[in-house]
Amino acid sequence: MNSSDEAKAARESGSEFMPKFDDQGLLTAIVVDVDSHQILMVAHMNAEALEATRRSNVGHFYSRSRQTLWKKGETSGNVLNVVEMLVDCDQDALVLKVKPAGPACHTGETSCFFRRLSGEGLVKAST
Amino acid sequence: MNSSDEAKAARESGSEFMPKFDDQGLLTAIVVDVDSHQILMVAHMNAEALEATRRSNVGHFYSRSRQTLWKKGETSGNVLNVVEMLVDCDQDALVLKVKPAGPACHTGETSCFFRRLSGEGLVKAST
Repeated sequence: MNSSDEAKAARESGSEFMPKFDDQGLLTAIVVDVDSHQILMVAHMNAEALEATRRSNVGHFYSRSRQTLWKKGETSGNVLNVVEMLVDCDQDALVLKVKPAGPACHTGETSCFFRRLSGEGLVKAST
Repeated sequence: MNSSDEAKAARESGSEFMPKFDDQGLLTAIVVDVDSHQILMVAHMNAEALEATRRSNVGHFYSRSRQTLWKKGETSGNVLNVVEMLVDCDQDALVLKVKPAGPACHTGETSCFFRRLSGEGLVKAST
Protein backbone atom coordinates (compact mmCIF):
# COMPACT_ATOMS: atom_id res chain seq x y z
CA MET A 1 0.00 0.00 0.00
CA ASN A 2 1.15 3.55 -0.61
CA SER A 3 0.93 6.10 2.16
CA SER A 4 -2.45 7.39 0.97
CA ASP A 5 -3.92 3.90 1.10
CA GLU A 6 -2.37 3.34 4.54
CA ALA A 7 -3.90 6.55 5.87
CA LYS A 8 -7.30 5.55 4.46
CA ALA A 9 -7.06 2.07 6.01
CA ALA A 10 -6.06 3.52 9.37
CA ARG A 11 -8.97 5.96 9.28
CA GLU A 12 -11.48 3.31 8.22
CA SER A 13 -10.55 0.45 10.49
CA GLY A 14 -8.19 1.75 13.15
CA SER A 15 -8.64 2.79 16.76
CA GLU A 16 -7.44 6.36 16.30
CA PHE A 17 -10.00 9.16 16.19
CA MET A 18 -9.13 11.19 13.08
CA PRO A 19 -12.19 13.32 12.29
CA LYS A 20 -12.31 14.30 8.63
CA PHE A 21 -13.72 17.81 8.44
CA ASP A 22 -15.08 18.87 5.04
CA ASP A 23 -13.82 21.84 3.06
CA GLN A 24 -15.91 24.10 5.29
CA GLY A 25 -14.35 22.57 8.41
CA LEU A 26 -17.48 20.66 9.39
CA LEU A 27 -18.62 17.16 10.35
CA THR A 28 -22.21 15.92 10.07
CA ALA A 29 -23.71 15.11 13.47
CA ILE A 30 -26.83 12.95 13.79
CA VAL A 31 -28.61 13.15 17.13
CA VAL A 32 -30.54 10.09 18.34
CA ASP A 33 -32.55 9.52 21.52
CA VAL A 34 -30.65 6.75 23.32
CA ASP A 35 -33.85 5.31 24.79
CA SER A 36 -36.47 5.64 22.01
CA HIS A 37 -33.96 5.33 19.11
CA GLN A 38 -35.78 8.22 17.42
CA ILE A 39 -33.60 10.43 15.24
CA LEU A 40 -34.05 13.89 16.71
CA MET A 41 -32.06 16.22 14.46
CA VAL A 42 -29.04 16.59 12.23
CA ALA A 43 -26.55 19.42 12.53
CA HIS A 44 -22.92 20.26 11.90
CA MET A 45 -19.87 20.48 14.13
CA ASN A 46 -16.61 22.30 13.60
CA ALA A 47 -13.55 21.41 15.66
CA GLU A 48 -14.57 23.84 18.42
CA ALA A 49 -18.09 22.36 18.70
CA LEU A 50 -16.67 18.84 18.79
CA GLU A 51 -14.23 19.77 21.54
CA ALA A 52 -16.95 21.52 23.58
CA THR A 53 -19.23 18.48 23.22
CA ARG A 54 -16.52 16.03 24.27
CA ARG A 55 -15.49 18.19 27.22
CA SER A 56 -19.01 18.86 28.55
CA ASN A 57 -21.01 15.84 27.32
CA VAL A 58 -23.63 18.34 26.16
CA GLY A 59 -24.32 18.77 22.44
CA HIS A 60 -22.64 21.77 20.82
CA PHE A 61 -22.82 22.53 17.10
CA TYR A 62 -21.76 25.09 14.54
CA SER A 63 -24.53 27.29 13.19
CA ARG A 64 -23.91 27.79 9.48
CA SER A 65 -26.50 30.57 9.27
CA ARG A 66 -25.14 32.51 12.25
CA GLN A 67 -21.54 31.33 11.72
CA THR A 68 -21.00 30.73 15.40
CA LEU A 69 -20.70 28.03 18.06
CA TRP A 70 -24.13 26.97 19.22
CA LYS A 71 -24.92 25.14 22.46
CA LYS A 72 -28.21 23.42 21.69
CA GLY A 73 -30.75 24.39 24.37
CA GLU A 74 -28.79 27.38 25.64
CA THR A 75 -31.93 29.53 25.38
CA SER A 76 -34.73 26.95 25.58
CA GLY A 77 -33.15 24.74 28.23
CA ASN A 78 -33.64 21.75 25.93
CA VAL A 79 -30.05 20.59 26.10
CA LEU A 80 -28.83 17.27 24.72
CA ASN A 81 -26.99 15.16 27.28
CA VAL A 82 -24.57 12.97 25.33
CA VAL A 83 -24.32 9.35 26.46
CA GLU A 84 -22.25 7.94 23.59
CA MET A 85 -20.70 9.08 20.33
CA LEU A 86 -20.17 6.88 17.27
CA VAL A 87 -18.08 7.68 14.21
CA ASP A 88 -18.53 6.30 10.70
CA CYS A 89 -16.00 4.50 8.52
CA ASP A 90 -14.48 7.55 6.85
CA GLN A 91 -14.80 9.65 10.03
CA ASP A 92 -16.73 12.54 8.48
CA ALA A 93 -19.95 11.88 10.42
CA LEU A 94 -20.91 11.28 14.04
CA VAL A 95 -23.91 9.80 15.80
CA LEU A 96 -24.65 11.34 19.19
CA LYS A 97 -26.77 9.14 21.42
CA VAL A 98 -28.43 11.53 23.85
CA LYS A 99 -30.90 11.98 26.64
CA PRO A 100 -32.73 15.15 25.56
CA ALA A 101 -33.96 17.56 28.25
CA GLY A 102 -36.96 18.47 26.08
CA PRO A 103 -38.15 18.70 22.48
CA ALA A 104 -35.23 18.82 20.06
CA CYS A 105 -37.03 20.79 17.36
CA HIS A 106 -37.52 24.55 17.53
CA THR A 107 -41.15 23.95 16.43
CA GLY A 108 -41.82 22.18 19.73
CA GLU A 109 -41.88 18.73 18.14
CA THR A 110 -39.88 15.97 19.84
CA SER A 111 -37.92 15.41 16.63
CA CYS A 112 -37.21 17.65 13.65
CA PHE A 113 -38.22 14.67 11.48
CA PHE A 114 -41.94 14.89 12.28
CA ARG A 115 -43.27 14.58 8.71
CA ARG A 116 -43.05 11.74 6.21
CA LEU A 117 -43.35 11.82 2.45
CA SER A 118 -46.72 10.63 1.22
CA GLY A 119 -47.44 10.79 -2.50
CA GLU A 120 -46.36 14.26 -3.62
CA GLY A 121 -46.76 15.84 -0.19
CA LEU A 122 -46.04 15.46 3.51
CA VAL A 123 -48.08 14.05 6.36
CA LYS A 124 -47.44 13.81 10.07
CA ALA A 125 -45.17 10.88 10.89
CA SER A 126 -46.56 8.29 13.27
CA THR A 127 -43.70 8.71 15.74
CA MET B 1 -45.47 38.09 8.07
CA ASN B 2 -43.44 39.09 5.04
CA SER B 3 -43.09 36.69 2.12
CA SER B 4 -39.78 35.32 3.40
CA ASP B 5 -41.34 34.49 6.77
CA GLU B 6 -44.35 32.94 5.03
CA ALA B 7 -42.12 30.73 2.90
CA LYS B 8 -40.20 29.66 6.00
CA ALA B 9 -43.41 28.85 7.87
CA ALA B 10 -44.78 26.86 4.91
CA ARG B 11 -41.57 24.89 4.66
CA GLU B 12 -41.37 24.23 8.39
CA SER B 13 -44.93 23.28 9.17
CA GLY B 14 -46.76 22.73 5.89
CA SER B 15 -47.73 19.66 3.91
CA GLU B 16 -45.81 20.57 0.77
CA PHE B 17 -42.53 18.82 0.05
CA MET B 18 -40.06 21.62 -0.71
CA PRO B 19 -36.58 20.11 -0.41
CA LYS B 20 -33.94 22.72 0.38
CA PHE B 21 -30.77 21.73 -1.44
CA ASP B 22 -27.57 23.35 -0.19
CA ASP B 23 -25.26 25.48 -2.30
CA GLN B 24 -23.80 22.31 -3.80
CA GLY B 25 -27.28 21.06 -4.70
CA LEU B 26 -27.36 18.39 -1.99
CA LEU B 27 -29.52 17.13 0.86
CA THR B 28 -28.24 15.07 3.79
CA ALA B 29 -29.74 11.57 3.84
CA ILE B 30 -29.60 9.42 6.98
CA VAL B 31 -30.27 5.71 6.44
CA VAL B 32 -31.84 3.72 9.28
CA ASP B 33 -32.78 0.04 9.51
CA VAL B 34 -36.58 0.11 9.90
CA ASP B 35 -36.54 -3.01 12.09
CA SER B 36 -33.44 -2.65 14.29
CA HIS B 37 -33.50 1.19 14.36
CA GLN B 38 -29.73 1.12 13.82
CA ILE B 39 -28.32 4.05 11.86
CA LEU B 40 -26.59 2.43 8.90
CA MET B 41 -24.97 5.29 6.99
CA VAL B 42 -25.21 8.92 6.02
CA ALA B 43 -24.86 10.16 2.45
CA HIS B 44 -25.98 12.96 0.16
CA MET B 45 -28.65 13.27 -2.48
CA ASN B 46 -28.98 15.69 -5.36
CA ALA B 47 -32.31 16.18 -7.12
CA GLU B 48 -31.61 13.30 -9.50
CA ALA B 49 -30.80 10.87 -6.66
CA LEU B 50 -33.91 11.94 -4.77
CA GLU B 51 -36.08 11.42 -7.85
CA ALA B 52 -34.53 7.99 -8.54
CA THR B 53 -35.08 6.94 -4.92
CA ARG B 54 -38.71 8.07 -4.91
CA ARG B 55 -39.41 6.38 -8.23
CA SER B 56 -37.75 3.03 -7.42
CA ASN B 57 -37.98 2.84 -3.61
CA VAL B 58 -34.31 1.84 -3.65
CA GLY B 59 -31.71 4.18 -2.15
CA HIS B 60 -29.80 6.32 -4.65
CA PHE B 61 -27.27 8.97 -3.65
CA TYR B 62 -24.83 11.44 -5.14
CA SER B 63 -21.19 10.51 -4.83
CA ARG B 64 -19.24 13.68 -4.05
CA SER B 65 -15.90 11.97 -4.72
CA ARG B 66 -16.95 10.50 -8.06
CA GLN B 67 -19.39 13.33 -8.86
CA THR B 68 -22.02 10.94 -10.14
CA LEU B 69 -25.34 9.31 -9.31
CA TRP B 70 -24.77 6.26 -7.16
CA LYS B 71 -27.22 3.41 -6.64
CA LYS B 72 -26.16 1.93 -3.31
CA GLY B 73 -25.53 -1.80 -3.76
CA GLU B 74 -25.33 -1.66 -7.55
CA THR B 75 -22.06 -3.63 -7.42
CA SER B 76 -22.32 -5.47 -4.08
CA GLY B 77 -26.01 -6.29 -4.30
CA ASN B 78 -26.50 -4.72 -0.87
CA VAL B 79 -29.31 -2.43 -1.94
CA LEU B 80 -31.42 -0.39 0.46
CA ASN B 81 -35.15 -0.98 0.06
CA VAL B 82 -36.87 2.18 1.21
CA VAL B 83 -39.97 1.72 3.37
CA GLU B 84 -40.51 5.32 4.48
CA MET B 85 -38.90 8.72 4.09
CA LEU B 86 -39.03 11.50 6.68
CA VAL B 87 -38.05 15.13 6.20
CA ASP B 88 -36.86 17.57 8.84
CA CYS B 89 -38.28 20.98 9.75
CA ASP B 90 -36.24 23.04 7.30
CA GLN B 91 -36.36 20.32 4.64
CA ASP B 92 -32.62 20.05 4.08
CA ALA B 93 -32.29 16.54 5.51
CA LEU B 94 -34.07 13.21 5.03
CA VAL B 95 -34.32 10.01 7.02
CA LEU B 96 -34.68 6.86 4.91
CA LYS B 97 -36.13 3.92 6.81
CA VAL B 98 -34.95 0.87 4.92
CA LYS B 99 -34.76 -2.89 4.78
CA PRO B 100 -31.12 -3.45 3.77
CA ALA B 101 -30.29 -6.43 1.54
CA GLY B 102 -26.91 -6.81 3.26
CA PRO B 103 -24.23 -4.89 5.16
CA ALA B 104 -24.49 -1.16 4.48
CA CYS B 105 -20.79 -0.41 5.00
CA HIS B 106 -18.16 -1.10 2.35
CA THR B 107 -15.99 -2.58 5.15
CA GLY B 108 -18.52 -5.41 5.54
CA GLU B 109 -19.90 -4.04 8.81
CA THR B 110 -23.68 -3.86 9.17
CA SER B 111 -23.44 -0.12 9.82
CA CYS B 112 -20.80 2.46 8.93
CA PHE B 113 -21.07 3.61 12.56
CA PHE B 114 -19.32 0.56 14.04
CA ARG B 115 -16.91 2.41 16.37
CA ARG B 116 -17.57 4.58 19.38
CA LEU B 117 -15.39 7.24 20.96
CA SER B 118 -13.67 6.02 24.11
CA GLY B 119 -11.21 8.35 25.84
CA GLU B 120 -8.95 9.70 23.10
CA GLY B 121 -9.51 6.75 20.75
CA LEU B 122 -12.10 4.45 19.20
CA VAL B 123 -13.40 1.05 20.22
CA LYS B 124 -15.85 -1.31 18.59
CA ALA B 125 -19.43 -0.27 19.31
CA SER B 126 -21.62 -2.83 21.03
CA THR B 127 -24.26 -2.79 18.28
